[in-house]
Amino acid sequence: MTVGTPTPAWTHRHLLDVDLLTRPEIERVLDLADQMRTARETREFRSLLDLETVALAFYEPSTRTRVSFELAAKALGATVVDLAVERSSAGKGESLVDTLRTLRRCGATIVVLRHASSGAPYLAARETDLSIVNGGDGAHAHPTQALLDALTLREALGNLTGRVVAIVGDVAHSRVARSNIHALTALGARVRVGGPTAWVEGFGDRRGVEVATTLEAALDGADAVMTLRVQTERGAVAGVGSLAEYVDGWRLDDERMLLAAPGAPILHPGPTNEGVELTAALANGPRSLIGRQVEHGVSVRMAVLALVAGYA
Amino acid sequence: MTVGTPTPAWTHRHLLDVDLLTRPEIERVLDLADQMRTARETREFRSLLDLETVALAFYEPSTRTRVSFELAAKALGATVVDLAVERSSAGKGESLVDTLRTLRRCGATIVVLRHASSGAPYLAARETDLSIVNGGDGAHAHPTQALLDALTLREALGNLTGRVVAIVGDVAHSRVARSNIHALTALGARVRVGGPTAWVEGFGDRRGVEVATTLEAALDGADAVMTLRVQTERGAVAGVGSLAEYVDGWRLDDERMLLAAPGAPILHPGPTNEGVELTAALANGPRSLIGRQVEHGVSVRMAVLALVAGYA
Amino acid sequence: MTVGTPTPAWTHRHLLDVDLLTRPEIERVLDLADQMRTARETREFRSLLDLETVALAFYEPSTRTRVSFELAAKALGATVVDLAVERSSAGKGESLVDTLRTLRRCGATIVVLRHASSGAPYLAARETDLSIVNGGDGAHAHPTQALLDALTLREALGNLTGRVVAIVGDVAHSRVARSNIHALTALGARVRVGGPTAWVEGFGDRRGVEVATTLEAALDGADAVMTLRVQTERGAVAGVGSLAEYVDGWRLDDERMLLAAPGAPILHPGPTNEGVELTAALANGPRSLIGRQVEHGVSVRMAVLALVAGYA
Repeated sequence: MTVGTPTPAWTHRHLLDVDLLTRPEIERVLDLADQMRTARETREFRSLLDLETVALAFYEPSTRTRVSFELAAKALGATVVDLAVERSSAGKGESLVDTLRTLRRCGATIVVLRHASSGAPYLAARETDLSIVNGGDGAHAHPTQALLDALTLREALGNLTGRVVAIVGDVAHSRVARSNIHALTALGARVRVGGPTAWVEGFGDRRGVEVATTLEAALDGADAVMTLRVQTERGAVAGVGSLAEYVDGWRLDDERMLLAAPGAPILHPGPTNEGVELTAALANGPRSLIGRQVEHGVSVRMAVLALVAGYA
Repeated sequence: MTVGTPTPAWTHRHLLDVDLLTRPEIERVLDLADQMRTARETREFRSLLDLETVALAFYEPSTRTRVSFELAAKALGATVVDLAVERSSAGKGESLVDTLRTLRRCGATIVVLRHASSGAPYLAARETDLSIVNGGDGAHAHPTQALLDALTLREALGNLTGRVVAIVGDVAHSRVARSNIHALTALGARVRVGGPTAWVEGFGDRRGVEVATTLEAALDGADAVMTLRVQTERGAVAGVGSLAEYVDGWRLDDERMLLAAPGAPILHPGPTNEGVELTAALANGPRSLIGRQVEHGVSVRMAVLALVAGYA
Repeated sequence: MTVGTPTPAWTHRHLLDVDLLTRPEIERVLDLADQMRTARETREFRSLLDLETVALAFYEPSTRTRVSFELAAKALGATVVDLAVERSSAGKGESLVDTLRTLRRCGATIVVLRHASSGAPYLAARETDLSIVNGGDGAHAHPTQALLDALTLREALGNLTGRVVAIVGDVAHSRVARSNIHALTALGARVRVGGPTAWVEGFGDRRGVEVATTLEAALDGADAVMTLRVQTERGAVAGVGSLAEYVDGWRLDDERMLLAAPGAPILHPGPTNEGVELTAALANGPRSLIGRQVEHGVSVRMAVLALVAGYA
């Protein structure tokens, strides 16, 4: 079965981060995701991964990413097994690598790994012969999130070359932001990271990235705005003052969005803290692509699974 | 594919409670459940819900209801995904509605929802465009339990018109009792609720319902007896005295069942506290339909899923 | 569909322990497991258990056994449902037998049961009409582990008649050791159990079993060595001194393995505590069959499921 355009040849057995992907490769994922969205309804590829076993190894809680990968794998006919970490021998102190090798020996061919430690997927890719898809590692990377964000932005804005995408919030601790910076700059966009100084400093050194430490500067003429979840569960508000101060200075609302380009869409990786990162009116209003991001999640993950498994 | 008789046309996208169903609609569910029981063996409808994705969202623990819905959905060929609440972003404080919208955007078409808050499924039906099946909400409703009880009673007694069904125990706090009162009275039965005053008062105002505050009055000539689980985990014994007093006054046994009609069957929604609500001898004896109730659970849930999905 | 050789006729509806199996029966399982390994790739038996529903009821945490059974059942086309004990009505105090009867009434035909209480699977087999496969019960038995160990040893050594297999560690508290003693002696091997006296005493009375209380005596000329996990979570180190003393006296390494027969392989049921039961070098070196054991797990469990279900 042939899927997608034949060029470029896909050479990656893993998806560890988007910084390893070229612009044509990222576009290939997005094009294939568009195909997958249709295929999901026609069920064209319902047996594509018939011979693959996808193991979900989520060492951190998740709804959307886990469910989205599970449904993506099932839509392609893969056998799916959930490690269900809290019920596993992880309780016996088994190491990550031992657990993954066990999954491999039980027949898993692809592992979707979410882990609190940055770099865990790289270790897994190096130490096992599984195909590893990074479902989020620490504050490091979340490549499928960045790819679905890119798909959402491409759908809304068309070609991203030269477009300005503002990413607002705790960029320093966000794997979503980090992977988005890679994906968006690779696609030719200019990324403007905005937030309290402690959350954005150092990012100005990257090619295609500029830093804004006031909301006005961050939004000024931006073609799209992505705001990040305030990770209160990681104590991330510490260092930039109180939550109230953050809300006061950085919460997005319809009025503040007037600073951005007319009609500029708003994105958020979810789950949102409505009233904190943005108002409920904005989150649920016509500018919001938040729901569309989730919808694209399954298509993008179908594309990624097909590619790393060598079927596309 | 045509399933069941064409009348009445099924117009419900949700199953929130049985009080929204007419007698012919309830009978339609029961008839279809009978068909499903056979179909399960012949596998006639094994691909009926091939295009549907059923998400299980159980915010309270469950064995029989969750497993029963899962096997019902799988028997009809649906894709099933389990939210596994304790491992999900519920831990990040995501709201119920946000979680369900995420499931919808990931491709879920039907959600089976169990929740501690009465009314949660109504909120879900209003705020998402999912098809919602109530798997039990607070002390409010448990419609599939009532439907499987009705199927069990119909199988044992035939037409329920004019038959007396006694429901014994903490009726006031029981979603099972509440939904059974709706279903049984709709099917023409007379329901007699029996228990300590605090557990049954106020129910006598309902059409077709009478109240008994002694066991003798509750059982007197009843055609069937349903006893409810003593919900000690909700402190329900409080207000009616000690557990020992309840057992003394209300525990069903073979001798006390002589007050009911000859051969009157005994039902219990499970899991039973043997020795509390009823004796082990009664629970496991020839009058007991407790096992049959569980068996009917899968058939009824197959019927409900097929109906709300518009395939029957 | 015919699978395997027609003799001996398989008469067991359950797999409770290997002590109920004759040598030809054990060999039948191993032969069928060899077939299953191939069949898994050709997908020859992908619909063999199409009509069966396998419920996983793990009352103790597990990675390899649960995942291995789940993938075995799915590879044969069975419907799989996971009881997910920590989320079930077990929290309501429902008894094991009630839970299993509920699973049966929901349509489960085979239950894989892991339980902390020795004998739980026997109770389940007696009190329900499910087909019960013991996935490990207390310190009593772990028959599929013993069968996969036997398959691994047969593959490495050929016919086991007269071969000496040393089992080292806390034999007294190990269900793995207990089942291995049955399987290996049934296959004609001599089993030598080795460990601190408190961990091995009493085993010398069994036919085909000898006891060694020094590592030198345990390893002397052994054709294969199996070392057991130190079950610190069951306080098992108590009674034989400190962990450091155990490591000092009993940890296997390449040098100590020189006492065994040349090239004698090393096995471990996993997960290993590297540096405790054996060195990392030994666990990951050429003598180690630890990975192979896990690989054989799925094939053996496919064979067992097919046999107890009457399809082979």
